[in-house]
Amino acid sequence: MKKIINAVPDLVRESCEGFAAAHADLVTLHPEPLYLARRDMPAQVALISGGGSGHEPLHAGFIGRGMLAAACPGEVFTSPVPDQMLAATQAVTGEAGALYIVKNYTGDVMNFELAAELAAAEGLRVESVVIGDDVAVQDSTWTAGRRGVGGTVFLEKIAGAAAEEGRDLAAVKRVAERVMAEVRSMGLALTGATVPAAGKPNFTLEDGQLELGIGIHGEPGRARVDMMPADELVDALLGPITDDLDLGRGEELIVLTNGMGGTPLLELYIAHRAALRALEGRGVKVVRHLVGNYVTSLEMQGLSLSVLRADDELLRLWDAPVHTAALRWGA
Amino acid sequence: MKKIINAVPDLVRESCEGFAAAHADLVTLHPEPLYLARRDMPAQVALISGGGSGHEPLHAGFIGRGMLAAACPGEVFTSPVPDQMLAATQAVTGEAGALYIVKNYTGDVMNFELAAELAAAEGLRVESVVIGDDVAVQDSTWTAGRRGVGGTVFLEKIAGAAAEEGRDLAAVKRVAERVMAEVRSMGLALTGATVPAAGKPNFTLEDGQLELGIGIHGEPGRARVDMMPADELVDALLGPITDDLDLGRGEELIVLTNGMGGTPLLELYIAHRAALRALEGRGVKVVRHLVGNYVTSLEMQGLSLSVLRADDELLRLWDAPVHTAALRWGA
Repeated sequence: MKKIINAVPDLVRESCEGFAAAHADLVTLHPEPLYLARRDMPAQVALISGGGSGHEPLHAGFIGRGMLAAACPGEVFTSPVPDQMLAATQAVTGEAGALYIVKNYTGDVMNFELAAELAAAEGLRVESVVIGDDVAVQDSTWTAGRRGVGGTVFLEKIAGAAAEEGRDLAAVKRVAERVMAEVRSMGLALTGATVPAAGKPNFTLEDGQLELGIGIHGEPGRARVDMMPADELVDALLGPITDDLDLGRGEELIVLTNGMGGTPLLELYIAHRAALRALEGRGVKVVRHLVGNYVTSLEMQGLSLSVLRADDELLRLWDAPVHTAALRWGA
Repeated sequence: MKKIINAVPDLVRESCEGFAAAHADLVTLHPEPLYLARRDMPAQVALISGGGSGHEPLHAGFIGRGMLAAACPGEVFTSPVPDQMLAATQAVTGEAGALYIVKNYTGDVMNFELAAELAAAEGLRVESVVIGDDVAVQDSTWTAGRRGVGGTVFLEKIAGAAAEEGRDLAAVKRVAERVMAEVRSMGLALTGATVPAAGKPNFTLEDGQLELGIGIHGEPGRARVDMMPADELVDALLGPITDDLDLGRGEELIVLTNGMGGTPLLELYIAHRAALRALEGRGVKVVRHLVGNYVTSLEMQGLSLSVLRADDELLRLWDAPVHTAALRWGA
């Protein structure tokens, strides 16, 4: 294992310290229990997320104006604990309440539920949404139901914009639920990734093989298949996505071509081109684009596609100002 | 070799097409000869750069307000040709003239020189700067003198801000030369990378080994050494950088912790933390931060550090609005 780390037990804390120092205008770091919070949080609904580390920039990279109020990083590929979520909730939640954004993994769901109960016992208003946008598999290694993957970026951005506009908790939650209803994702991997505490790859693929429908922790997908040209790879991802969304001609989409961490941007743009051509061939319109590493799996080579069916309201909230470490426009 | 590509001869063009489609608000693509240009270029000095592909987001990701007017992508790790540079120059250069920003590699320097002659013969005013910020080696595989690496981001941003302010060509060139005088970089690699046309890694490292002082094409560096903790790795890069800059106590710096393409952001922030602590220990102040994949080497795992000694003017130009695919603030 070759990693740019010091000791394994310190790596998440040290990485958060580096992040907080680089983005001191945006976030403050609370070391114990560990969470990061938005600096200068206004009186509005607070979006709180979190999950295992190793998926950066998710979630800390999305703290700031127009997105998250706080993020709780767990150990690598391991849910944060309720103490972290409760402390973050206490720090950023005012009278407007908080919305937990939870990716659908058993540990995250359980721990966020417990945190919500603890927060409610303190008189804090907390609602939760659980995102499961991955069409690859119905249940998986660490999930009952679909896994939460790249669509989380759309959820955090759009619900964050609704919170920033001053909407109340019920309205922000409704926007979040609309995003979840309209987004689907699927990914593939060319290589595994090495969790530092394990010291060896979470899975291996033969030369010439890839895994279709992989999860962001290297969970098995739909099938191990032979390498294909980029256009065919993209078709293999888009088919299940567009079938599940039941896209109609003329509908408007936001498309995220997301790198898993170890894929060159050169290749991501080739995949994005292929996605645009395939979607145009289906008679739909891609009206907004995001290409880059947003929901990653350490150094895994591979990518995922996320497609959001957008109406005028979702588009307007997508376009609203955002100022975070990883997404920034209009602010 | 596992790559998300179609046919090797098409990959640069296809990637540029995906890029231009995703960023149609910022750039236009000219397929033959291949270059990308800023949409809605104002009447001001035009910064033009380019180089081999495989270093994305450099350079096309830096086209837009406050940075580049045009970028010419070569084949992977191969200089673009003078026809591309000349066509780009004709497209974006007005009475204010153009400044070529050239990374110091033999092919790039030769081809940009030829393009400058051709442009001058057409009556266009062109000046050039050649950046060599890599302190690792004095001469290298493809270089007489120091290689141009991560510091190019500082050069393009700061000279771009000077151009955007409406300064004349001589003044923009002076700013570019000041940046080059004040920036130094050094990198390391944990793995090689595979140029698609070659089909196999450009070099291999044993498990437990890394290469210090690597170039962005995998050119050999200073030494092959055993893996070290992140703090020691960062010290090994910062020593030559700070020695060469001859930093004095209290000086203000901008620091770029740059991923080579395949390194998780989690690790880059650990390295950034280490860099901040080491620099603070030397009595200097880090006043601006940039952490991410900006000057890459395909899927290589590794990182580079770039340090710029900044005065008030350079800081002000760094902070000036920029709107490109890869860097955006204040605009």
